Amino acid sequence: MAKLSLKDAQQTQLFTFAYPQRVYFEDTDAGGVVYHARYIHFMERARTEWLRYLGFNNSDLYRKHKMVWVVSEIAIQYLKPARVDDALEITASVDTMGRVRCTFYQEVRRGDELLVKARVSLATVAADSFKPIEIPADLKKKMEATC
Amino acid sequence: MAKLSLKDAQQTQLFTFAYPQRVYFEDTDAGGVVYHARYIHFMERARTEWLRYLGFNNSDLYRKHKMVWVVSEIAIQYLKPARVDDALEITASVDTMGRVRCTFYQEVRRGDELLVKARVSLATVAADSFKPIEIPADLKKKMEATC
Amino acid sequence: MAKLSLKDAQQTQLFTFAYPQRVYFEDTDAGGVVYHARYIHFMERARTEWLRYLGFNNSDLYRKHKMVWVVSEIAIQYLKPARVDDALEITASVDTMGRVRCTFYQEVRRGDELLVKARVSLATVAADSFKPIEIPADLKKKMEATC
Amino acid sequence: MAKLSLKDAQQTQLFTFAYPQRVYFEDTDAGGVVYHARYIHFMERARTEWLRYLGFNNSDLYRKHKMVWVVSEIAIQYLKPARVDDALEITASVDTMGRVRCTFYQEVRRGDELLVKARVSLATVAADSFKPIEIPADLKKKMEATC
Repeated sequence: MAKLSLKDAQQTQLFTFAYPQRVYFEDTDAGGVVYHARYIHFMERARTEWLRYLGFNNSDLYRKHKMVWVVSEIAIQYLKPARVDDALEITASVDTMGRVRCTFYQEVRRGDELLVKARVSLATVAADSFKPIEIPADLKKKMEATC
Repeated sequence: MAKLSLKDAQQTQLFTFAYPQRVYFEDTDAGGVVYHARYIHFMERARTEWLRYLGFNNSDLYRKHKMVWVVSEIAIQYLKPARVDDALEITASVDTMGRVRCTFYQEVRRGDELLVKARVSLATVAADSFKPIEIPADLKKKMEATC
Repeated sequence: MAKLSLKDAQQTQLFTFAYPQRVYFEDTDAGGVVYHARYIHFMERARTEWLRYLGFNNSDLYRKHKMVWVVSEIAIQYLKPARVDDALEITASVDTMGRVRCTFYQEVRRGDELLVKARVSLATVAADSFKPIEIPADLKKKMEATC
Repeated sequence: MAKLSLKDAQQTQLFTFAYPQRVYFEDTDAGGVVYHARYIHFMERARTEWLRYLGFNNSDLYRKHKMVWVVSEIAIQYLKPARVDDALEITASVDTMGRVRCTFYQEVRRGDELLVKARVSLATVAADSFKPIEIPADLKKKMEATC
């Protein structure tokens, strides 16, 4: 049932979006490092800003199409910890695209160091029923142009 | 590089620990359902209570062994959403055990429904250097007795 | 404009609800103690369980009355820090009640020690417009019986 | 015991730092608006970036002085809700300064609208004992120059 692997992307990405993220105390735990679930928040922020970069946003998608994204699967690997005040970059690039589901490959980097990498699968669903609906055509086209 | 799969556990577990978890507003997002990263918090709570159930806790492990756990990998699959006021159960059972690394299989259930399932790999590391150290022998013995 | 004070309750409470809360790594920050905003989550959990104890819950209130609570004001004082594995108690008692607004007095305790105290004002609003609506009569009656 | 009021600042601030903050799904709850405790995170981010703007940061303060900040008191008032995709500004300005304690006045704004306002008191403490220590002289001087 494991659909996601963490193999490196097999094709060169034409375009990788990177979102800058400073680490604050709120992001850390008593171990002195960023709490593991927090990177998944960072990755949502990066995908949201990537969407905005493409000319879309979740509020409009909701208003026009009554759609929301749901995360259906994540495979994430933690390589090195980040700490308070670190300046991180969170990347987001589309790895695969179907009619209702797409997968992102995302990394958390601190300068040249790769700290975390993940594949995140999302589906587009109707906001009321949570039933799958197709990705709006104009968004799909823009997304395909990036991968 | 994908080390974790989400295949069902191949052997019958002798013992599965379940932690009850009510859903509060803080756990949800504007989609009306539990925010995807939040389940990973729930799973940490379940592992922590499971550890306490075995007679150990993180404060003591830190004081005696200067060790902390770090999550090294997660594979998580979201099947159905949970909502405000849902009464959930979060399970935790040891799937595999090595000298410094162990993997848990965890589920989030609402009555008979399986909502989320995950494999979570953790390593025991020195609190100061974050270098791997062996799981303390008494803890390892207890953990092995559960799987 | 400051409507909330942190003076101790002037009247003896007939009833104080206490919610047990263990501290997990997710609750702490790199300072080694519970992150200050997290206590405000704990207090929401305690109010929610207090509501359930009175025979109500937010899902039903939404379904029957299309109402949600909004927090309108908080005054909170941090006296001593809590740490990983601490067993806390979060209290909730109604301090004042109006037609659309009520104020809770809440404490976070660890055994005999008072760690945090707060007054939290909430208003009942319509879920769609966020306009104030009266607290449902049956809930109001139950709440008044506790203070 | 209430030390903080939410009266407007009595003197004109020479300088108010503003931190831009987009609202993401992670920040919202099932009521469709930003979760009330989250604004307190936003305010920490703004104070941290304000500190960086003054030429200081928490990692250095820890390394040089073994100090951390602790929040000792917050008075916060919620006037209007923020929603997904809103572009907010979080301000931070020093309101009062003592030897170990300082108070910030902070606002959350969306364009011309004031959404949330707060006073946040912090103390500088030793990282190990959590005993109060004086604010380092060079930092204090810089802070005083802003208020």
